[in-house]
Amino acid sequence: MTANLVNRRVLLSSRPKGVPQASHFSIDEASVPDPGDGEFLVKTVFWSVDPAMRGWVNDAPNYLPPVEIGAVMRSFAVGEVVLSRHPDYEEGEMVSGMFGWQRYAVSDGGNVDRKITETDLPPSLALGVLGLNGVTAYYGLLDVCDPQAGESVVVSTAAGAVGSAVGQIAKIRGARTVGITSSPQKASLCRDQFGYDAVINYRQDDVAAAVATACPDGVNCYFDNTCGPISDAVMTNLALGARITICGTASLTDWDPIPVGPRVHRQLLVARARMQGFLVLDYKPRFGEAIAVLADWVREGKLSHNEHVLDGAAAAPDAINMLYEGRNTGKLLVRAD
Amino acid sequence: MTANLVNRRVLLSSRPKGVPQASHFSIDEASVPDPGDGEFLVKTVFWSVDPAMRGWVNDAPNYLPPVEIGAVMRSFAVGEVVLSRHPDYEEGEMVSGMFGWQRYAVSDGGNVDRKITETDLPPSLALGVLGLNGVTAYYGLLDVCDPQAGESVVVSTAAGAVGSAVGQIAKIRGARTVGITSSPQKASLCRDQFGYDAVINYRQDDVAAAVATACPDGVNCYFDNTCGPISDAVMTNLALGARITICGTASLTDWDPIPVGPRVHRQLLVARARMQGFLVLDYKPRFGEAIAVLADWVREGKLSHNEHVLDGAAAAPDAINMLYEGRNTGKLLVRAD
Repeated sequence: MTANLVNRRVLLSSRPKGVPQASHFSIDEASVPDPGDGEFLVKTVFWSVDPAMRGWVNDAPNYLPPVEIGAVMRSFAVGEVVLSRHPDYEEGEMVSGMFGWQRYAVSDGGNVDRKITETDLPPSLALGVLGLNGVTAYYGLLDVCDPQAGESVVVSTAAGAVGSAVGQIAKIRGARTVGITSSPQKASLCRDQFGYDAVINYRQDDVAAAVATACPDGVNCYFDNTCGPISDAVMTNLALGARITICGTASLTDWDPIPVGPRVHRQLLVARARMQGFLVLDYKPRFGEAIAVLADWVREGKLSHNEHVLDGAAAAPDAINMLYEGRNTGKLLVRAD
Repeated sequence: MTANLVNRRVLLSSRPKGVPQASHFSIDEASVPDPGDGEFLVKTVFWSVDPAMRGWVNDAPNYLPPVEIGAVMRSFAVGEVVLSRHPDYEEGEMVSGMFGWQRYAVSDGGNVDRKITETDLPPSLALGVLGLNGVTAYYGLLDVCDPQAGESVVVSTAAGAVGSAVGQIAKIRGARTVGITSSPQKASLCRDQFGYDAVINYRQDDVAAAVATACPDGVNCYFDNTCGPISDAVMTNLALGARITICGTASLTDWDPIPVGPRVHRQLLVARARMQGFLVLDYKPRFGEAIAVLADWVREGKLSHNEHVLDGAAAAPDAINMLYEGRNTGKLLVRAD
């Protein structure tokens, strides 16, 4: 049944140190096996490009084992069930899951995140604002920072797929939002599309001084996607009882050896602040709850998003580096071909 | 009524950078004013020496304004009400409060922490295990770390006034305790008097390796009194969901400029750990609750402590430095004279 299908795949061909570059990947074409009993075949439509993928290919302690050399690059994807020998999956259903950077994936359901039931909305949203990005923003902000009306919430990578959702959810909660971003173009997006009350361009502003001006009573919540100098600058402006979500460390490309920076201990002590690591995968049992709320916000026009779609497997090898260099203008996706 | 009394006082005479030395203080003898209406006179018996006093004399952001040059050194003390024109305080009552390094203090009650009602126990305990040290251990461990039975709790300055109470309270809660200390003598105290399950001497052991051996499933709770290299070593051994109380930063003597060290962000992220600043003064409304429990544990022999008493004002100027150099063998006190 699958004899004529060609599975275009992106493989990890060597082990990067730091951010993976195009040279660390190769592209091949493989045959597609028939799904066995209890399995089904997914034809992917979009592949996701996420900051976490850097960690997945580095040979360092992480929450998942590193992708093996020669294996299909691990990634989230959305696709259609095109052939099923599994009682719970029907041909024509759309699913999202860890299908990897490949056109066809055989699954037994174990790597499926969910069936996409919001069929009134584009399926690509399941990789962004209605996927891990949106759910990361939702629980990382609401469960860890728990911003209150009138509080100041600072977001790094403010125009990014996670950051833009964080800023908008904080606004929905009645907080004041301050976005930190990397260019005048993204600063405009932050103000005009994502509704930030103040925007800081870290490439041209003195971040510590700008945060102090934007948050005269201090920073109550900081959603940290970057670590590094941006984070250091925010940390000099904590309000009493501040909460900090450590969601990502995008500005530091290598964790071996552990990079040095200003010690945060005294700042946490003086402000009685809390800094907490957040991994969205811990919230898997509660994804549906968040996605239902996020989908309603999208339908009501309260939660806006952008996508940046690369065309085909040939564009995938450079994609993670593109993300770390900030060359994307929205949630970065690869259209499968 | 106070005409014949001499108030021996220890004054801050110059502004230290880092740990205050004997040379930063002077001793004088002043007259004692009569308390006015609504005031009373306290004759101090013991003065406290606490790590926090370093922060109180440095001209840097802190939770209290810096002690002014020429002023009596701020400190906790216990003493007796020897003359009262205040309706709530009677002569002969023992009180603890922020009376400073001076023999006589006039108070309107605003700087009183509490009346010492556990008259079956020595009053000096109100500066240690039944004072801020004990209450710091109690809330800093139970409210921030919340150790569960069977979890591993690591304590730095494990033989110190706070650390020894932390270790014993964690044992009362059913946790395994690992103490980090600075000498074979203190290591013996940790094992024999304070009941630690494992003890690490940071001056002779490889702390990271020793913590890994002592906590094969990782560190669930870390009560951090030191910051610096000891903390860095513990942070390489976090268990999933670890909780870290930042209670003190004793190993770093200067915070201006902020010292650098290994960034903790990735460790917090990978372990989904929480690091939180703790200041006992925030718990003032709940001190009584903790002291009642702590006093019962002292009476039942479950909570042991040591005191190191210096004799008279002449010994006070060197006392803070002595604490930071670890030359004390228990809660450091000065006997007022």
